[in-house]
Amino acid sequence: MTTQRARICKGCWQQMRVPVPLHGVLSLPFRMVGIRPSRMNPNTCTICELMFTRVMRARKISIDATVLFADLRGYTTLSQSLPDDAVSGLLDTFYDECASAIWDFDGLLNKTIGDAIMAIFNFPIQQPDHVRQAVLAAREIHRRCHARRADLVRAFGSQGDQLGVGIGIATGQVSFGEFGRSHRDLTAIGTVVNTASRVQSVAGAGQILVTRAVRDGAGPELAEREARAYQLKGFETPVELFAA
Amino acid sequence: MTTQRARICKGCWQQMRVPVPLHGVLSLPFRMVGIRPSRMNPNTCTICELMFTRVMRARKISIDATVLFADLRGYTTLSQSLPDDAVSGLLDTFYDECASAIWDFDGLLNKTIGDAIMAIFNFPIQQPDHVRQAVLAAREIHRRCHARRADLVRAFGSQGDQLGVGIGIATGQVSFGEFGRSHRDLTAIGTVVNTASRVQSVAGAGQILVTRAVRDGAGPELAEREARAYQLKGFETPVELFAA
Repeated sequence: MTTQRARICKGCWQQMRVPVPLHGVLSLPFRMVGIRPSRMNPNTCTICELMFTRVMRARKISIDATVLFADLRGYTTLSQSLPDDAVSGLLDTFYDECASAIWDFDGLLNKTIGDAIMAIFNFPIQQPDHVRQAVLAAREIHRRCHARRADLVRAFGSQGDQLGVGIGIATGQVSFGEFGRSHRDLTAIGTVVNTASRVQSVAGAGQILVTRAVRDGAGPELAEREARAYQLKGFETPVELFAA
Repeated sequence: MTTQRARICKGCWQQMRVPVPLHGVLSLPFRMVGIRPSRMNPNTCTICELMFTRVMRARKISIDATVLFADLRGYTTLSQSLPDDAVSGLLDTFYDECASAIWDFDGLLNKTIGDAIMAIFNFPIQQPDHVRQAVLAAREIHRRCHARRADLVRAFGSQGDQLGVGIGIATGQVSFGEFGRSHRDLTAIGTVVNTASRVQSVAGAGQILVTRAVRDGAGPELAEREARAYQLKGFETPVELFAA
């Protein structure tokens, strides 16, 4: 799996055919005016983040996107018996492995929320197969975290073995842009985001659960998966989910 | 309640006696080198945000802080039956009212997470009475959101009346700094943060629940409040909480 980083902003190139250097001496004039690799995806730049207000002249747009939530199971319990620096090292590792996996599949690591992360696929880099890319990123998160298991057991003893990652994915129309007039937070909202979060909450450690729309959009590989009904918090009727 | 914003960075003045202009013509040279009001608290500047890596030469520090989570109850259900722009307008309002309340009491609006927000008190502006300030900010969030109730009912009908804010507060040592080596997220982590989040999850709409440490630290006004035991997710034994 490549972890090579792009030399020019993938978003600006794809959407405007403008080469914005991200590294090296050519990037210096850009950095002086505040254009640098995005924290949410270092293969894109801060112009992409601001595209709404500055370029598109809209604070929010409606886009088709896939949203992924991943949560480090066992973290709350473990953090109660560990010193703060061990806990923070654990989160550093979790965030970093998630970031690498998401960026490998051109996703945006939009938020870290305690022991969870939220990623968005199809913006600013457009991906015709964003549903499939999100599923592949989820598997890569599992692969990477599993590869670190030996380190965790060494660091945290048998408790380290109880750590695992639960992942939920949903896809559809989201409202993407800056929310809050004073705080200004760039994120996606809508039913799809809530659903992805709730789906993650019922996924077990080591499990990837997806909605029907994700199963249908991810390609032939998931087409045969059978549904199981889950009662999700805030949803009136049970929701059919699929293991991916 | 003042909503007047500071003219110089409160954090830099308090900790270094350096006047960093936030607005007007005097702020222009600072803005050219990337120093501007912080998104998390516009009465402080981006130097305060970067204080760890640049000034303190440490990525994380252990500090005594109070952490507040507030969640918009009824949002998930409401968002399923509303168009995206109505939902995003609702979140804009919620984020803005929370931001104003938190900044009035010198807190840091650290994260917005879907229908929830997380705030930290005692950094970068140090507050000897940060526990009490957090409780006052929580009440101000309720007061502000209640004042918007008529607007909500007008916008969303009877469903608007079912919206309410649940708030949880915890206090103690947190690990504060930048987490994730590649994504770099400035936040607080530790048991106190998890606890505040879990406390919020059991608070009803219109309720503020706090831990014993918050009750003890908030001043005489809360000293008489009686405990009720709650079972919090991820906690082995029930936790005593107090209504504030």
